[in-house]
Amino acid sequence: MASGEYTRDQRYIATRITADGRTGYPVEPGRYRLVVSRACPWANRAIIVRRLLGLEDALSMGVAGPTHDERSWSFDLDPGGRDPVLGIERLREAFFRRFPDYDKGITVPAIVDVPSGAVVTNDFAQITIDLSLEWSALHRPGAPRLYPEESRAEIDEVNALVYRDVNNGVYRAGFATSQDAYETAYHRLFDRLDWLSERLAGQRYLVGDSITEADVRLFTTLVRFDAVYHGHFKCNRAKLSEMPVLWAYARDLFQTPGFGDTIDFVHIKQHYYEVHRNINPTGIVPVGPRLHGWHSPHGREALGGRPFGDGTPPPPPKPAEVVPAGHGAE
Amino acid sequence: MASGEYTRDQRYIATRITADGRTGYPVEPGRYRLVVSRACPWANRAIIVRRLLGLEDALSMGVAGPTHDERSWSFDLDPGGRDPVLGIERLREAFFRRFPDYDKGITVPAIVDVPSGAVVTNDFAQITIDLSLEWSALHRPGAPRLYPEESRAEIDEVNALVYRDVNNGVYRAGFATSQDAYETAYHRLFDRLDWLSERLAGQRYLVGDSITEADVRLFTTLVRFDAVYHGHFKCNRAKLSEMPVLWAYARDLFQTPGFGDTIDFVHIKQHYYEVHRNINPTGIVPVGPRLHGWHSPHGREALGGRPFGDGTPPPPPKPAEVVPAGHGAE
Repeated sequence: MASGEYTRDQRYIATRITADGRTGYPVEPGRYRLVVSRACPWANRAIIVRRLLGLEDALSMGVAGPTHDERSWSFDLDPGGRDPVLGIERLREAFFRRFPDYDKGITVPAIVDVPSGAVVTNDFAQITIDLSLEWSALHRPGAPRLYPEESRAEIDEVNALVYRDVNNGVYRAGFATSQDAYETAYHRLFDRLDWLSERLAGQRYLVGDSITEADVRLFTTLVRFDAVYHGHFKCNRAKLSEMPVLWAYARDLFQTPGFGDTIDFVHIKQHYYEVHRNINPTGIVPVGPRLHGWHSPHGREALGGRPFGDGTPPPPPKPAEVVPAGHGAE
Repeated sequence: MASGEYTRDQRYIATRITADGRTGYPVEPGRYRLVVSRACPWANRAIIVRRLLGLEDALSMGVAGPTHDERSWSFDLDPGGRDPVLGIERLREAFFRRFPDYDKGITVPAIVDVPSGAVVTNDFAQITIDLSLEWSALHRPGAPRLYPEESRAEIDEVNALVYRDVNNGVYRAGFATSQDAYETAYHRLFDRLDWLSERLAGQRYLVGDSITEADVRLFTTLVRFDAVYHGHFKCNRAKLSEMPVLWAYARDLFQTPGFGDTIDFVHIKQHYYEVHRNINPTGIVPVGPRLHGWHSPHGREALGGRPFGDGTPPPPPKPAEVVPAGHGAE
């Protein structure tokens, strides 16, 4: 590891939930619970994909509070501070039920096997792919194809670059402990955003003419950009709202059912600013930025594209899963 | 002091340099040295006023480096790390020569009496007023009237509000140690910026139709806004460049001789981000924001106004006082 460089611990619990049940965890409606935080971009991917595919009834969702201490994410938003399905106060309890001596990161998203109370997986990159491919029997009618076979190679290629330079790139900038490591991450990030701007100037979505997994992954970073990455992580060449193509692209997705309706800007800001005391010792959460414009016209329909391909948009979120008033965009 | 609120130590050395010499420190060409840092907004006022009034030959200037430790500002930009006129390495030596047991802030701007090597004053608010009123015999031909008697009451009134809510308001936001104290400062700041935007929408300068002391004081905060206050001090409702009236007003002044030519964005960013480890523990200096647009047309000539009243613009800075290439706006 180069001096001062941030390296993400990528040792996840990689057990997969599959249609054929070969791992001992078959896809079954009602058996699993997706635990998320609305603050976390990695969890946000799973929230969006679950919404787009209409898996809400098949896979329930527990929402942890936006902040956590060294003892991990907790269910402090729930009555009595316990997840009503799992009956636990802290997510780590589900990790320990799987591995009593678990010593790696307690992360979201995590999928918990409800009968045993044990985490099956927290491998965020695989979770959304499996929701698309392994859970297909439980998709809603009209669910989009987010990871279509014919585009998979291109999606994977884009995802790899976006992960390295953007999704994880903002963390490499924000958590760098040396000027050099920070500047390397900063330039890779903005060079990649320039590349993405060029790519998206003439096409509505990242791959093909419909929304795919690649758009979900880019969106979850872009939507947090001005609220947290710009200031807190020093990704400040410009705000998203100053990058016309990416700003229009992000608004287009935000206004698409299943994207913007999953975003809780209050949780996002609280999480980053209160938890990362190493870079924000006071824990003070900025009042700004004004989060306006997300609902303004983006004009990207002119580029054509069929957002859901041969499918349809998802219905509105279930009442219990609606983001609280005042937590969304202005 | 309310909990978590930042209070500026306002105990300055208030000895004045006067035309009549009643304090023992008469105005005399060549006798005093103005010590500044180009990073500091309070010192920036004095740099600008000295330029506008053409006092460069009468009052020499020493420039401290942008960062300092607990032993105060030092002359690390100078050959051998010593101010060539005062012969000292650190500004505090000049404070101790005045008061051997001096225990208050070692601040810039400070005016040092060269023969004795002792600080006369670091009372920034009085310094610029005295440069206008007490040093008038040494002003250049065509020097503007920055504190004209007929406007003084209005200038004082504006200055008091701008000081409380803007000049010092950004510090109250940035150095708050409680959420409440921060939010109070944030709202006072942006309410005042809204008030200033309204005032300046229809008039080119803050008081009357020419540049005054009031414009100098507002400018030195606005010019730092996007570079440091927006991110580092969490003054992030919007960037200056997103506030159309104030952004045009600031550009108008920036492009006026004596204002923009005093600005060193590199020193500004280094100072705030490297010195304030209490709010930026890593000391990492952001690469952004892009500092473009400062030289773009502002359109404010349409509001009329006579920048220098019956006077004239100052000539370009002396070669030794030109801000290094690459340290200004893009």
